[in-house]
Amino acid sequence: MSDRSVAVYPASFDPITNGHLDLITRSTRLFERVVVAVGKNVAKSGLFSLEERIDMISGAVADLDRVEIDVIDGLLVDYVREKGAHVVIRGLRVLADFEYEFEMAMMNSHMNPDFETVYLMTSARWFFVSSSRLREIASFGADVSEFVPKLVAQKMKEKFARS
Amino acid sequence: MSDRSVAVYPASFDPITNGHLDLITRSTRLFERVVVAVGKNVAKSGLFSLEERIDMISGAVADLDRVEIDVIDGLLVDYVREKGAHVVIRGLRVLADFEYEFEMAMMNSHMNPDFETVYLMTSARWFFVSSSRLREIASFGADVSEFVPKLVAQKMKEKFARS
Amino acid sequence: MSDRSVAVYPASFDPITNGHLDLITRSTRLFERVVVAVGKNVAKSGLFSLEERIDMISGAVADLDRVEIDVIDGLLVDYVREKGAHVVIRGLRVLADFEYEFEMAMMNSHMNPDFETVYLMTSARWFFVSSSRLREIASFGADVSEFVPKLVAQKMKEKFARS
Amino acid sequence: MSDRSVAVYPASFDPITNGHLDLITRSTRLFERVVVAVGKNVAKSGLFSLEERIDMISGAVADLDRVEIDVIDGLLVDYVREKGAHVVIRGLRVLADFEYEFEMAMMNSHMNPDFETVYLMTSARWFFVSSSRLREIASFGADVSEFVPKLVAQKMKEKFARS
Amino acid sequence: MSDRSVAVYPASFDPITNGHLDLITRSTRLFERVVVAVGKNVAKSGLFSLEERIDMISGAVADLDRVEIDVIDGLLVDYVREKGAHVVIRGLRVLADFEYEFEMAMMNSHMNPDFETVYLMTSARWFFVSSSRLREIASFGADVSEFVPKLVAQKMKEKFARS
Amino acid sequence: MSDRSVAVYPASFDPITNGHLDLITRSTRLFERVVVAVGKNVAKSGLFSLEERIDMISGAVADLDRVEIDVIDGLLVDYVREKGAHVVIRGLRVLADFEYEFEMAMMNSHMNPDFETVYLMTSARWFFVSSSRLREIASFGADVSEFVPKLVAQKMKEKFARS
Repeated sequence: MSDRSVAVYPASFDPITNGHLDLITRSTRLFERVVVAVGKNVAKSGLFSLEERIDMISGAVADLDRVEIDVIDGLLVDYVREKGAHVVIRGLRVLADFEYEFEMAMMNSHMNPDFETVYLMTSARWFFVSSSRLREIASFGADVSEFVPKLVAQKMKEKFARS
Repeated sequence: MSDRSVAVYPASFDPITNGHLDLITRSTRLFERVVVAVGKNVAKSGLFSLEERIDMISGAVADLDRVEIDVIDGLLVDYVREKGAHVVIRGLRVLADFEYEFEMAMMNSHMNPDFETVYLMTSARWFFVSSSRLREIASFGADVSEFVPKLVAQKMKEKFARS
Repeated sequence: MSDRSVAVYPASFDPITNGHLDLITRSTRLFERVVVAVGKNVAKSGLFSLEERIDMISGAVADLDRVEIDVIDGLLVDYVREKGAHVVIRGLRVLADFEYEFEMAMMNSHMNPDFETVYLMTSARWFFVSSSRLREIASFGADVSEFVPKLVAQKMKEKFARS
Repeated sequence: MSDRSVAVYPASFDPITNGHLDLITRSTRLFERVVVAVGKNVAKSGLFSLEERIDMISGAVADLDRVEIDVIDGLLVDYVREKGAHVVIRGLRVLADFEYEFEMAMMNSHMNPDFETVYLMTSARWFFVSSSRLREIASFGADVSEFVPKLVAQKMKEKFARS
Repeated sequence: MSDRSVAVYPASFDPITNGHLDLITRSTRLFERVVVAVGKNVAKSGLFSLEERIDMISGAVADLDRVEIDVIDGLLVDYVREKGAHVVIRGLRVLADFEYEFEMAMMNSHMNPDFETVYLMTSARWFFVSSSRLREIASFGADVSEFVPKLVAQKMKEKFARS
Repeated sequence: MSDRSVAVYPASFDPITNGHLDLITRSTRLFERVVVAVGKNVAKSGLFSLEERIDMISGAVADLDRVEIDVIDGLLVDYVREKGAHVVIRGLRVLADFEYEFEMAMMNSHMNPDFETVYLMTSARWFFVSSSRLREIASFGADVSEFVPKLVAQKMKEKFARS
């Protein structure tokens, strides 16, 4: 079973939310090792630099064993192969995610038939929380501390105070 | 990790399709043991008896190691607990599945916070194949051998010849 | 091109609505002949007999040339082949139709690669009108004359007066 | 503004859930009087009699002012007119509700242009809770006390103990 | 009930369409005062300046009593609180709106539990009309006078003649 | 029937995929002439110039009779009228397409009641393939030769080698 026990969780984490953290935590109960793979480039509407995003994840997963943080820059199927992994974890939050995820799962299993994507439903408590929505409301001065790890709430406040 | 390596795949399997079989096969690569849990009661539009459904599954998974067939009669959370398992596998075929699955995942994790549902996307090749659609077209005399294991195609032909 | 100019429009027409009629009319502009194929059996919640449904369609399409009414009892792919047709017309009203239609289109083109389903969007004016919703509200005494041909409105009134 | 301050909330309430109760409570803040209109007939999969359903609602809304419980037997537009009301409240839980609600809103405003349906989103806390799902899991012996008023949890336990 | 009778209708109105106007009109029948809150900033694909958008709304609602036009620049929950209002009105046009609206409703009621969003379905007649689609087709020279107030049609023609 | 036998298939074809090609092929069986109408301007995320896109289509449809390639620059309804056509072909791939297509179909039939849009479901084999997804994964070095005509695969490789 060896390398089936390594799972890669790729996202842009801009920033990491309580929803992401919940998924990472649950994944550590399913797999022996979970690689949090931070996308190097983010959308134009991106807020935090790669370094900042990694810092915030590091703080958030400090208490979790068997979690590794890494940077992904290129094709997911290639990255997973290099890591010696076969399993990718994705969260499903809303219907709008579903079709994109379906297309990507089909594409990826075409490019590597040995590649498997495993989906977890985002917890009811966090399903309406997305990084993009948080960036949007935080830019208007909203307090997002209920939806993100402590460090992230502080960083977001600083970010928008400065800007 | 122990019991995290046992996954339960509950469905009515009326009858088992190539889509189900594909999911079982892929699950054996993710978990050490996969329990195919056949629902005792099926919908009013059901076709095969519990015994027939189990027979067809047995034939279909004969070449797969580490697969167990069992009957589930009651609440899924209770069954999973009794089995000493924590993980349930479900296939996502179409958007229409999504909301039902989301509701059930939320319900189940409320009833047992330690309960985890893992979703796999049905393969592109079989995503438009469902047991109910097959029962429908087979009842009009369609040949469904392309979509189901050999034994099932034969049984369906018999069923509708007799009826 | 010959037989490509014959299109089959299968539905249960229980009863025919203005939405159906609109689709038939538009189809006659796309194809040389349109076969309105009435499903022999309808759902348990059915209202009108096969004869009644055909009568109402006859009345509604009386002014349309090149429309034929027929009964379909069996597999659609078989029926279409017997008719020497290759094209099936379906209306898309709502998202909920979409996935069922997608599955059926895939199934049918698997069973007969030469089979083509052509979809038309239901007109904005009638997109919220379905036979089942009309049966539901008419059973509570609603006047549905705005949504169906004249004859149908009258028949529905009689039906529910009697019952 | 007078009769615009009366809102009718029609549903089958089989049984009333915490989601329903949340909606009734929020509606009393929007309208001067809220009529909880219990559908006389329920689906074949119904569980409680009209009397039982009304009893459970009565218990649940005992602390709420300006809430009236009534029975609706017929067309909603007619009922609303008789009540001298113009506003109907509906909860939106999931996408699957959306299209049905859209069709009904269109139908109703066609039948009475002065009729207005107002939608509230079900609270995040209860959005995955529906009466039908609760009946389903309670029938397998699940404890649903987290999702329904106290009295309802007790009645459901009795119902399934007896059956 | 006092401040429950003030409802805020926030949107970018770039430009106001017949769909918006229909919603404003219906809202004045539900609430004593309706504040049309024009978002200060619009998307990059925006067409009209804040002043132009306000002018066109003013013209369109001239015949409606109890409608106020205001500018919103910041977080909606903050704006609503400052206005002494509790109710926000939103139109639901298509399924694609639904999940965004659900997320925002959850977010907003988390940030202010006393905040209520009320949804109205866009009328059948206008449900396929959106400001962004109109900007798109008008930019290709389409006449949009059927879908917008007279003044808006004229302004759009000027805008695209000049550009 | 004359001009009903000319169908316009408008898209940006950036680049043409096997899914597009499948639709063009099937359309030639339904209509006497199929005009592949290439949109002059593409989204900001566009990859190929108009000339490159036309070249690739030319190569791909070389074996198909009765297919014409043209450029569309303006309103679709205007273009179709100038061509003396009445029928537009569109592919439906995923639910996400559906609402956009519905809106456009309604808009277009409002602007020209004689305008008809005909939808075909993308083949099961290609339904998860879109130009935008291919551009995305090819930019990361993925081999897309399985999803596009030979010439296109080569051009995409060159494009991303150069960039």
